[in-house]
Amino acid sequence: MITMRRLDASEARLIIEGARRQAQASGVPMCIAVTDDSGSLLAFERMDGGKIHSIAVAQDKAFTAASARRPTDELAALAQPGQPLFGINVAVSGRFCVVGGGLPVIVEGQVVGGIGVSSGTPAQDLECAAAGLAAFHGAQTAVA
Amino acid sequence: MITMRRLDASEARLIIEGARRQAQASGVPMCIAVTDDSGSLLAFERMDGGKIHSIAVAQDKAFTAASARRPTDELAALAQPGQPLFGINVAVSGRFCVVGGGLPVIVEGQVVGGIGVSSGTPAQDLECAAAGLAAFHGAQTAVA
Amino acid sequence: MITMRRLDASEARLIIEGARRQAQASGVPMCIAVTDDSGSLLAFERMDGGKIHSIAVAQDKAFTAASARRPTDELAALAQPGQPLFGINVAVSGRFCVVGGGLPVIVEGQVVGGIGVSSGTPAQDLECAAAGLAAFHGAQTAVA
Amino acid sequence: MITMRRLDASEARLIIEGARRQAQASGVPMCIAVTDDSGSLLAFERMDGGKIHSIAVAQDKAFTAASARRPTDELAALAQPGQPLFGINVAVSGRFCVVGGGLPVIVEGQVVGGIGVSSGTPAQDLECAAAGLAAFHGAQTAVA
Repeated sequence: MITMRRLDASEARLIIEGARRQAQASGVPMCIAVTDDSGSLLAFERMDGGKIHSIAVAQDKAFTAASARRPTDELAALAQPGQPLFGINVAVSGRFCVVGGGLPVIVEGQVVGGIGVSSGTPAQDLECAAAGLAAFHGAQTAVA
Repeated sequence: MITMRRLDASEARLIIEGARRQAQASGVPMCIAVTDDSGSLLAFERMDGGKIHSIAVAQDKAFTAASARRPTDELAALAQPGQPLFGINVAVSGRFCVVGGGLPVIVEGQVVGGIGVSSGTPAQDLECAAAGLAAFHGAQTAVA
Repeated sequence: MITMRRLDASEARLIIEGARRQAQASGVPMCIAVTDDSGSLLAFERMDGGKIHSIAVAQDKAFTAASARRPTDELAALAQPGQPLFGINVAVSGRFCVVGGGLPVIVEGQVVGGIGVSSGTPAQDLECAAAGLAAFHGAQTAVA
Repeated sequence: MITMRRLDASEARLIIEGARRQAQASGVPMCIAVTDDSGSLLAFERMDGGKIHSIAVAQDKAFTAASARRPTDELAALAQPGQPLFGINVAVSGRFCVVGGGLPVIVEGQVVGGIGVSSGTPAQDLECAAAGLAAFHGAQTAVA
């Protein structure tokens, strides 16, 4: 048997709230998705003005970051022409997303979930995803 | 031009919270989805213990209720063998869901969104969806 | 954080071997799939003579049993015309399978995976799935 | 009439075991898939720590190698911008995989199956796929 840890629902909300606050500060409404370690959706929010295609893209970024265990912007670099993962972006029925804005959620070296943000530029999306993670890790520190 | 009204993100959260409170009271963890009038996802939450297939089913119930503008349990009756909508449940790549637990969100006679709940029995799911609606309409009344 | 347990790869093999032995004893070659608690594939085997469509069906039965946390033949009863889950069988892009032959793998009351078998009659499929579970639980007892 | 030869279930297991041993030696847990000459799945194993998206990618690599009758890393070269197969990676609903780690299984000049490995770098994946083939051909030689 393998013993795994994964985000719970309250932690998922905390991550979404952190990302939302950053999006509000930036003035760019976002779609924000949080998955567990298997890439299965835990929580989602489309802010007023979030884009329709971003409903799927945010989820795909979160899935990809949780599964590949790395930021999706790193995958972007690896999927460029001539690079080792060129062409990977259509995998898993196109759910494998190599656009920046997805981050794994890592606790004590283990992936316990993923966050994906979409509707802005990839840099803006990534900034919100990082703010979601910061809210989560800040709350963990406060508890400890 | 058509002017539409639809749920905003804070209203979607309110609906999810109402459904969650009922699920907690019933002791049945749920997947809860809220869509806008187009059936596009606004908010989602998988409670601790919500089922994996219910991630999709909750969204499909909300989509169907918003689009068909009626409770999914009414559609269940119409989709039985010999009834007028028999076979409809495979429509839209199977997203048209005729299992109880989906309700349209209606304001002044106009559908502004949908809620779908899944992981319990259809009766339990419907009870939570109704509680989500009640939280929304209660808040509307309190404001007015 | 939620702490989960799930099948490991050696346990998945054990389950497949148990199901295969029953299939050989019955003379009906099978497709056999084992998933983790999230319904994600751990192991699969198509025996010589296993059917092509059963490659998907076995996986779908295992996914469904793990996610719904009950045997797929119980779901079959609930999905009949006039029953509460009528129409559910097209959910999750048709992956929600209500044909007998899928069983959850349960350890100390917690679902840690699923097994799905397909290529025979649902009764034959179920018999093999049960044999897979028996091999797993027998090995657990031997260790304990 | 055409008489085809294809891998049997015991050979598929042999190939998976060979790939698994290499993965264990390298310390990189893998998803390993073996298909027949039609690209239909024969056997699959996700090692403890194998990635979720790799469940699909390993199968797609095996499918592609069996069907295209060449290593997927050769296809990667041909699918680069300006090359003859540019764009092919979206074919078959994205199942046509041009990332290294897929190899055809060839016996006396005839493709009898495919192996696909995923979770490491494409170079690591390919090394494991080759080890799977070596186990198969070694066993064939031992028999002869």
